[in-house]
Amino acid sequence: MADKWIYAFGAGNTEGSASMREQLGGKGANLAEMASLEIPVPPGFTLTTGCCVDYLGSNEFPAGVWEGVLGQMERLEKAMGAKFGGDENPLLVSVRSGARDSMPGMMDTVLNLGLNDATVAALERKSGNRRFAFDSYRRFINMFGNVVLEMEHHDFESLIEAMKNNRGVSTDVELSADDLAELTKQYDALVKEKTGSAFPQDPAEQLRLAIEAVFKSWNNERAVAYRRLYSIPHAWGTAVNVQCMVYGNMGEDCGTGVAFSRDPSTGEKSLYGEILFNAQGEDVVAGIRTPEPISALKERMPECLAQFEEISARLEDHYKDMQDMEFTIQNGRLFMLQTRNGKRTARAAVRIAVELVAEGRIDKETAVTRVDADSLDQLLHPAIDMDGGVDVIATGLAASPGAAVGKVVFTAADAVAQAGNGGDVILVRRETSPEDIMGMDVAQGILTARGGLTSHAAVVARQMGKCCVAGCSALNVQADEKTIETNGHLIKEGDWISLNGNSGDVILGQANLKQPEMAGDFTTLMEWADDIRTLGVRANADTVADSEAALKYGCEGIGLCRTEHMFFEEDRIDYVRAMILAETEAGRREALSHLLPFQRGDFIGIFEVMGDRPVTIRLLDPPLHEFLPKTLHDMEQVATLLGISVEGVKHATEIHKEQNPMLGHRGCRLVVTYPEICEMQARAIIEAACEMKKRGVSAFPEIMVPLTAGEAEWEFNRNLVAETAKKVMVEQGVEIRYLVGTMIEIPRACLRAGQIAETAEFFSFGTNDLTQMTYGLSRDDAGQFLPEYLEKNLIARDPFVAVDCEGVGEMVEIGIERGRSVRPNIEVGICGEHGGEPTSVEFCHLVKMDYVSCAPPRGPIARLAAAQATIAHGAYKTAEIH
Amino acid sequence: MADKWIYAFGAGNTEGSASMREQLGGKGANLAEMASLEIPVPPGFTLTTGCCVDYLGSNEFPAGVWEGVLGQMERLEKAMGAKFGGDENPLLVSVRSGARDSMPGMMDTVLNLGLNDATVAALERKSGNRRFAFDSYRRFINMFGNVVLEMEHHDFESLIEAMKNNRGVSTDVELSADDLAELTKQYDALVKEKTGSAFPQDPAEQLRLAIEAVFKSWNNERAVAYRRLYSIPHAWGTAVNVQCMVYGNMGEDCGTGVAFSRDPSTGEKSLYGEILFNAQGEDVVAGIRTPEPISALKERMPECLAQFEEISARLEDHYKDMQDMEFTIQNGRLFMLQTRNGKRTARAAVRIAVELVAEGRIDKETAVTRVDADSLDQLLHPAIDMDGGVDVIATGLAASPGAAVGKVVFTAADAVAQAGNGGDVILVRRETSPEDIMGMDVAQGILTARGGLTSHAAVVARQMGKCCVAGCSALNVQADEKTIETNGHLIKEGDWISLNGNSGDVILGQANLKQPEMAGDFTTLMEWADDIRTLGVRANADTVADSEAALKYGCEGIGLCRTEHMFFEEDRIDYVRAMILAETEAGRREALSHLLPFQRGDFIGIFEVMGDRPVTIRLLDPPLHEFLPKTLHDMEQVATLLGISVEGVKHATEIHKEQNPMLGHRGCRLVVTYPEICEMQARAIIEAACEMKKRGVSAFPEIMVPLTAGEAEWEFNRNLVAETAKKVMVEQGVEIRYLVGTMIEIPRACLRAGQIAETAEFFSFGTNDLTQMTYGLSRDDAGQFLPEYLEKNLIARDPFVAVDCEGVGEMVEIGIERGRSVRPNIEVGICGEHGGEPTSVEFCHLVKMDYVSCAPPRGPIARLAAAQATIAHGAYKTAEIH
Repeated sequence: MADKWIYAFGAGNTEGSASMREQLGGKGANLAEMASLEIPVPPGFTLTTGCCVDYLGSNEFPAGVWEGVLGQMERLEKAMGAKFGGDENPLLVSVRSGARDSMPGMMDTVLNLGLNDATVAALERKSGNRRFAFDSYRRFINMFGNVVLEMEHHDFESLIEAMKNNRGVSTDVELSADDLAELTKQYDALVKEKTGSAFPQDPAEQLRLAIEAVFKSWNNERAVAYRRLYSIPHAWGTAVNVQCMVYGNMGEDCGTGVAFSRDPSTGEKSLYGEILFNAQGEDVVAGIRTPEPISALKERMPECLAQFEEISARLEDHYKDMQDMEFTIQNGRLFMLQTRNGKRTARAAVRIAVELVAEGRIDKETAVTRVDADSLDQLLHPAIDMDGGVDVIATGLAASPGAAVGKVVFTAADAVAQAGNGGDVILVRRETSPEDIMGMDVAQGILTARGGLTSHAAVVARQMGKCCVAGCSALNVQADEKTIETNGHLIKEGDWISLNGNSGDVILGQANLKQPEMAGDFTTLMEWADDIRTLGVRANADTVADSEAALKYGCEGIGLCRTEHMFFEEDRIDYVRAMILAETEAGRREALSHLLPFQRGDFIGIFEVMGDRPVTIRLLDPPLHEFLPKTLHDMEQVATLLGISVEGVKHATEIHKEQNPMLGHRGCRLVVTYPEICEMQARAIIEAACEMKKRGVSAFPEIMVPLTAGEAEWEFNRNLVAETAKKVMVEQGVEIRYLVGTMIEIPRACLRAGQIAETAEFFSFGTNDLTQMTYGLSRDDAGQFLPEYLEKNLIARDPFVAVDCEGVGEMVEIGIERGRSVRPNIEVGICGEHGGEPTSVEFCHLVKMDYVSCAPPRGPIARLAAAQATIAHGAYKTAEIH
Repeated sequence: MADKWIYAFGAGNTEGSASMREQLGGKGANLAEMASLEIPVPPGFTLTTGCCVDYLGSNEFPAGVWEGVLGQMERLEKAMGAKFGGDENPLLVSVRSGARDSMPGMMDTVLNLGLNDATVAALERKSGNRRFAFDSYRRFINMFGNVVLEMEHHDFESLIEAMKNNRGVSTDVELSADDLAELTKQYDALVKEKTGSAFPQDPAEQLRLAIEAVFKSWNNERAVAYRRLYSIPHAWGTAVNVQCMVYGNMGEDCGTGVAFSRDPSTGEKSLYGEILFNAQGEDVVAGIRTPEPISALKERMPECLAQFEEISARLEDHYKDMQDMEFTIQNGRLFMLQTRNGKRTARAAVRIAVELVAEGRIDKETAVTRVDADSLDQLLHPAIDMDGGVDVIATGLAASPGAAVGKVVFTAADAVAQAGNGGDVILVRRETSPEDIMGMDVAQGILTARGGLTSHAAVVARQMGKCCVAGCSALNVQADEKTIETNGHLIKEGDWISLNGNSGDVILGQANLKQPEMAGDFTTLMEWADDIRTLGVRANADTVADSEAALKYGCEGIGLCRTEHMFFEEDRIDYVRAMILAETEAGRREALSHLLPFQRGDFIGIFEVMGDRPVTIRLLDPPLHEFLPKTLHDMEQVATLLGISVEGVKHATEIHKEQNPMLGHRGCRLVVTYPEICEMQARAIIEAACEMKKRGVSAFPEIMVPLTAGEAEWEFNRNLVAETAKKVMVEQGVEIRYLVGTMIEIPRACLRAGQIAETAEFFSFGTNDLTQMTYGLSRDDAGQFLPEYLEKNLIARDPFVAVDCEGVGEMVEIGIERGRSVRPNIEVGICGEHGGEPTSVEFCHLVKMDYVSCAPPRGPIARLAAAQATIAHGAYKTAEIH
């Protein structure tokens, strides 16, 4: 049997269903599903994604498809009592893309298809509205010209601007019917001029060309960029939906809009959306006019609102999730154009998931899977502290919650360049378009002068979890001059501003931020996640404040306490430098003796917070030159302080310079050359734990050796620690429990993990360095070429963001397998930054780690991702360590 | 049955044999073997290496050992008709170390043991030589004090110097018997002063303490350093030989010396050695007096020489190898003290091996195993070109062949420091001692003022394959002032000198070098090796000259042709810089178009030399900043040349700077960002091959992509090359054969080798970078800590010298296994510097590579090592590629 390429929906003949998303795309499957539910949708048919893939491969429709399309058109003519290209009651259709996963605005759409010089007259007669007819026709020529004939949108815009100037009016709606009719002639001429051929008058040819153009738009640049950003396979292809047109712009009893069954920002259970009266859908999406809230229907068409609320409830009940619906009202009659599970903020996702459980619609496990773990970041980031007295210079729509502080940039390219240099930027645009995606991705926040809550900027920002203030019409954005004027302020490129995504406020300068609070639904959901997950979650925490945050964010211990940060504090750095500059072991020991009480105090502080929870303390890791002064002024100061010559200090910094410091004299290699450093640190840790024990607290240090490459060097380090610990415990007359283990962050250590595990009590995979070495990729330098790799689709994701499972992941697996083959109950964790990234957490679950460790505010993300991994792949039992 | 700890030899009771080297050490086994062959050896007994290990573990002799020693002493008393500690005919013995592998001079020895205030008088009576008796006694106290009582040698030396000054004489031999008797009293007093106890008078106590001291000397610092340098396990322990003393210093009919059965420098078949008349062995080894050639015996004791020649022939016939023999003549009677397979220069090793085959003593395979592959380096290094008119300022003994040019340093520490900074140094010492080993290891050559051909400097230098001029007595070396005076010249530290190790000439300044010639026995041996080996040998060669050298050294192709070296040439670097500084693709293409003819010419030149042999060409590898100007002056020049601002050039160099360039924007990553570079290079290669084809030569380029990390990036690069090649061949109307493959030098590439091999036609393992990444070890920076790792025995060998089989080697194995599982006949080679190091070549044989590639002059080393690996591990059949 040949593939079925075309599926009908509506008007009593619906062949697809929601389950056929793969073939019909999200939009097609939903239209079919809605039609089966007897929701009023304009009838139509869907060409499958398979048809697209086939077409893109051969540049021809599969055999029989075109005939099938013509057959469907006959069905629609019959259903609507209209004629495609007919000069009495012409049938007009839309041709829209519809991929498996939503890619809003990325691919092309053609509306009003079927209009030509003859049918436009018929439409005028039929509707009795000449202005509407020619408005539709000029929009169609513009869109067809742009999408199908690859003409520039602004060439059409220039003509309409000229017409408006000519007529002395400022908006499109002020143009008369005759003006628009004249415009269609000018558009026709433009088409002839730019393409060399007349605008196609044959509706069937229009349809064929439009379907082909929409298929091809799967591979346009912005669609490819979007798929890369959201990891959507390029092989899927898009479906195409051909559907009878209904019009929201046939008069004041018409309108079009978008609505959500619950508030996508807060999750509140009430219909939430916007409507543009007397307008077409494209006006909403483009954000060119600012729409009214959907509650405006209450006054103007109350029965429509009631019907909509009933449909919304029915759809939500059917899909068991919050719905995002597009609709059009034509002469007081409601048509549902599309429904899908709605994008939402993390805050809304949490509330909706918890409330759907309370409503008995879903169970707790399903609720846990309903929240994108990464999106919790939105809830865990600080917000603008408005109490401090901020200078609000304008207020727009609160389009995506959170807060952002950054320097103003005016183009996506500038955003990428400046963010690449480590700068925080706010991308300011009159309105955003899909071309801006890369810029939005690197910006702290997005500010637009036009567009509503469902404008491109708002939708994309919410999905990215980025703060966005949209439609801030008080801003006069002059992108060419790189300035914003607003309420008497002139803001230039590079000036600091702050955005409050919860209120829509635009603030001059750098606002203060305040920490988020986690409570209510959030706490409930996290409790469910904690009940489900197998994987432990610890925090990377170096200070008392970090440790307190770790507990606040639900982490169960510290997986990485970096001791070098302690060395940089002002009262210590001089001793550290004295140690490095000492030329003898005795000199180093003297300097270290001053550091010992500081380090001991650091650990006591952390143990006081963490109680008997595990605290994994990494011994000194960075190369010593990081501690040496960099400027001449600092060198002079150090020289004076230590009573040595400036030349001596300079010489030492020269000696310690390295070609490739990542692969240099650091980690446990420092201990091989300067064992006394390790002895001091081990002593500080054990003395601190002994002190806690005397106070009745069983602190639990896990002492971690960094940068181990093999067993001989590991044993050397381990023995130093163990001997020091033994000595201290005898001195103190106290026995404490502690572990000694190692980072596994060098490929060779993964290979030698079996030998290392002979004596190592735990492994902690340092996937930052392991990625750098396994991939031969310096994180500091990869910015020069990684974007090009992403651009050219040579890597799926930045391996420093998500664990490269195929390469680095296999090294981790080898390390775990060999370690456990020798010591089955060896404790295994990860402390690279991947520990807080959901796909990496899933990987850690799959390789049966005991825990992940991440930045404290990412704790909840890791907890949720761990629960989702357990649901997806099942639980396992980690070894009992303690 | 308990372990047997003691083995007798000589005087009709020999319990050991040559095969018991493991227990008896080299010296003990040889003494036993010689004794069984009825060679005249002084009788004695051996305490086993096992006894040493046991002793070092417990600090006590194993049960029964001391009783066994006393029993053996009784046997010796009986055999010699003498009495240990007897006041008539006292038995004196030597106590010497003897490890499984020779460690010359590294461990301790005590001679004349048994002397005390009573026996010295007996010895005087018995020998009728008071001077000899007290000379022996004062030597014994000195040696015992130094070795057993841990006193300083120079404290004894000071007393003897004072005595000489006092007597107004300049040499020891001028001191009278009474002077020496007086000196023993002073020595006794010194012992009392320094140790708090009197010198032990009881011979049994002397013996016990001496045996213990020799056991302990296994772990002295210089022995540990030596074992590290020569990869001798620390766990072996040393045997101890207790043997009756015979004296070479009892008069003018006495002597002692060392001789080889063939010339260890040239391999010539004739007894070769040295004798010091009326002297003890330590005088020879210490190099304090310069000995006479052994031929001097011909006049003085012809019957001894004849006997020696007969014994030498008998021993050589027995051991089937050249022998290194120590002997003493006591009152005209020859005693053989030791024999072992002699160390020899590579030149001698080759000649001896070939001649032993000619003599029918060994077969070709054995001959091939008889030459240390690494030692061939000596033959393959250039020699001083004496024709050019050099300024010879002194001439010493040609102690180790070759040539060396370097700056003068006076201490081992200075040698290490300056060589570490990349400098070539010549270590100049009055005489070397085992403490100098590290300095000798890094020096280009060694020059001593004292000592003969078997002095410490000469023996060690020959073994290291380093040029050495020894015993150059015209030099007045003032180490404290860091000067040498000789024949009116004053040479200071840092001055350039050159050494001719073949003539013994010391030359002022930097002499010219000339290339070695390989012929005769060398050619014969290499032909045997080529017949035996399985592994192919290619050369790393970037130029026509390199390619010619590759063929001269017997390489079968080029395994690594680095194209970046071509970019640095004066007529090209400006275009390279213009390319890098261009801001557009068009600008880069313009600059590249100028480089194309140069590159094509380069390849034609190489193909002309290599004919139809494979030439593996690596595409551009280093980061672009390596090509940019470094100094302000150069930047200005470039700016002027390219008509851009100096600021612009500075800015570009800033932009291209990297934190960790090893892991940065280089290799095939350059091609992802600038595909046009690869296109130019591929075009140049294929155009060159087409040109050769038109001339009737089937050049065979293997185009190699560097720094591949995974399959996507590989495919991108491969497709660029393949498409360019196809285009060029169509343009040229010529089909050529070529391969496209990749370096495997990133750990991830080893893991992804299966996927890469889907389309890669060859792999070449870049073990330099693979070591850096697998080990997390920057070669440029490891100098800060690798010496400490070697010192502390945490690594066996520098992993940049010999492949780290346990880590890096496993990555290589994984890569080969996965590559071959997908493409069984994939060509596999290695092009890191390991390709010319014998243990690494053996590794490559074990993992069944097709070839190794190395620097041209190391070609013969690789060929010989490959043959030795085949003999050791058997042949295998590599896939047929072409």
